[in-house]
Amino acid sequence: MTQSNQYNIAVVGATGAVGQKMLETLEDRNFPIKELKLLSSSRSAGTNVTFKGADYTVEEATPESFENIDIALFSAGGSVSKKLAPEAVKRGALVIDNTSAYRMDENVPLVVPEVNEEDIKDHKGIIANPNCSTIQMVAALEPIKQNLGLNRVIVSTYQAVSGAGNEAADELREQSQAFLNGEELEANILPVGGDKKHYPIAFNALPQIDMFQENGYTFEEMKMINETKKIMHAPALQVAATCVRLPFFTSHAESVYVEVEQENVSVDQIKSLMTEAEGIVLEDDPSTQSYPTPLSSAGKRDVFVGRIRKDLDQKNGFHLWVVSDNLLKGAAWNSVQIAERVIARQWL
Amino acid sequence: MTQSNQYNIAVVGATGAVGQKMLETLEDRNFPIKELKLLSSSRSAGTNVTFKGADYTVEEATPESFENIDIALFSAGGSVSKKLAPEAVKRGALVIDNTSAYRMDENVPLVVPEVNEEDIKDHKGIIANPNCSTIQMVAALEPIKQNLGLNRVIVSTYQAVSGAGNEAADELREQSQAFLNGEELEANILPVGGDKKHYPIAFNALPQIDMFQENGYTFEEMKMINETKKIMHAPALQVAATCVRLPFFTSHAESVYVEVEQENVSVDQIKSLMTEAEGIVLEDDPSTQSYPTPLSSAGKRDVFVGRIRKDLDQKNGFHLWVVSDNLLKGAAWNSVQIAERVIARQWL
Repeated sequence: MTQSNQYNIAVVGATGAVGQKMLETLEDRNFPIKELKLLSSSRSAGTNVTFKGADYTVEEATPESFENIDIALFSAGGSVSKKLAPEAVKRGALVIDNTSAYRMDENVPLVVPEVNEEDIKDHKGIIANPNCSTIQMVAALEPIKQNLGLNRVIVSTYQAVSGAGNEAADELREQSQAFLNGEELEANILPVGGDKKHYPIAFNALPQIDMFQENGYTFEEMKMINETKKIMHAPALQVAATCVRLPFFTSHAESVYVEVEQENVSVDQIKSLMTEAEGIVLEDDPSTQSYPTPLSSAGKRDVFVGRIRKDLDQKNGFHLWVVSDNLLKGAAWNSVQIAERVIARQWL
Repeated sequence: MTQSNQYNIAVVGATGAVGQKMLETLEDRNFPIKELKLLSSSRSAGTNVTFKGADYTVEEATPESFENIDIALFSAGGSVSKKLAPEAVKRGALVIDNTSAYRMDENVPLVVPEVNEEDIKDHKGIIANPNCSTIQMVAALEPIKQNLGLNRVIVSTYQAVSGAGNEAADELREQSQAFLNGEELEANILPVGGDKKHYPIAFNALPQIDMFQENGYTFEEMKMINETKKIMHAPALQVAATCVRLPFFTSHAESVYVEVEQENVSVDQIKSLMTEAEGIVLEDDPSTQSYPTPLSSAGKRDVFVGRIRKDLDQKNGFHLWVVSDNLLKGAAWNSVQIAERVIARQWL
């Protein structure tokens, strides 16, 4: 451990959409950094990045990069994590991994601090950061589960392009301008960089996020289903998801239907739970048209909840609208938050 | 009745987003028009409109406008319909009304021809055209209800700005360009023209369509709930809706969860029902990334269905993705289609 409670930090994928937000978040939180090492694939190595007014050159990540690193924040794709996270652990670093590589590994805690902070202490060198759309949903669901019991969740998502990286955001920007100019739209990235076909996202909606699985669900939908059960320690919780990519840059929104165990629950009780919950901001007043939106939540670390309504048929059914910055609570902030808890609870 | 099976037609609201599509649809369908009268509020009166190569001047709608009219297609707002539809009926016209003014009136049939064509014959001069987001959903649900029984529907919508009129579409266009230029976004129309606050729609999502009701639901959500039960003759059907406005111009998409009555239903059975159903196009093949989108369905009269999946927990639960042009099947085409059925079945 480095002296005077400062830590050597590596950020892997420092030039990506999430990596950039990780640096901003480390700076905003005045994270106790002794030395900062910025790493990437060979493609982005050599890029210059500024952190707290100082210039850093991004280096290609190799096993040796992790010598003397205390905490390594990975966000450079699943294959990089699979290859290099074990190398970092071998050299004594704690890895907080933002890819899907280790999330469902039973030896790896999958953590949203407001939900299952205590799981961190069982780590064996790697802690996984959940999928963006999952994090904001479980943050809102946990206080409901804890206080009212939770049987069932049906979610339809409204997801920002930045979840697919800077290239997807560039594509939305270029296609939008082309559309407004009356030109043809060129699609090369979305819905999924590596898939066979690409469709325009500008002024459109794509009901595919990540690749299709054998069961007809997309991988994003299965991530929401499986990760929610793992994070909430609720293997029997019924979770259904439909994930849709939409033409906005930042923040995912979610239309969430839940059924609680307890009887005679009121909307006001759920509103109180949201008001009291850590990391949640209730923004819900129809009389003043108050509800969160992607634009209103972008750049903020909280999860915003609004449009809470009782189902008109199911006595124990409620509808919620959950919005959060997919690059902050959905990625960078949740990762840095895990690092902060690791330090505060001395779980390094 | 006019001679040789041609009809005198009035279009009220001829300069609006729906009115323009009504004219296009009447032209595309080669509707048997003897004389065409284009009407509007005083504000738009005097506008010149071309139909089948001939120029028409839009006149201000008055009670006397409907003398000798056989069929009047109304789409100029609820207050115009309330005032003038009875005047049109008094003068012998059949009114097909695209506003919400008469939809829940028990003396007025609310019709989607593929679902409840027979209800037309009970009309007393007015037939109501349902809300856009309701029409496409019930078109997809009816074959399921008829063949498998239907207990429950939970829908989250992804709705185009054109549903709020040409001004909303202009606002999206202007705000999008301002955003791309790095300028401030000015919001004057959405979420609802007449409401207190306005929020940017460009690169955003607004979980409010139409005004909030006492119960915390928006009027759009209550329209989907109440109209669905009326059209499908299913007062006990459980319907829940969350309606969201999104930054695209044309076509609404819907993430629809249904529970059917029959046991052991397969995804293939539902796909077959969609393939066989009138007005429905199945577009559903994960192996070729085939699913409908707002852009792919715009300008077409069908309702497109894809992403059909069995729920992973509920044996009788299924998820569907339903997309259709909100100005065509959701408005103009459904109205013209009602007029065609009225003529074909001699129900004028």
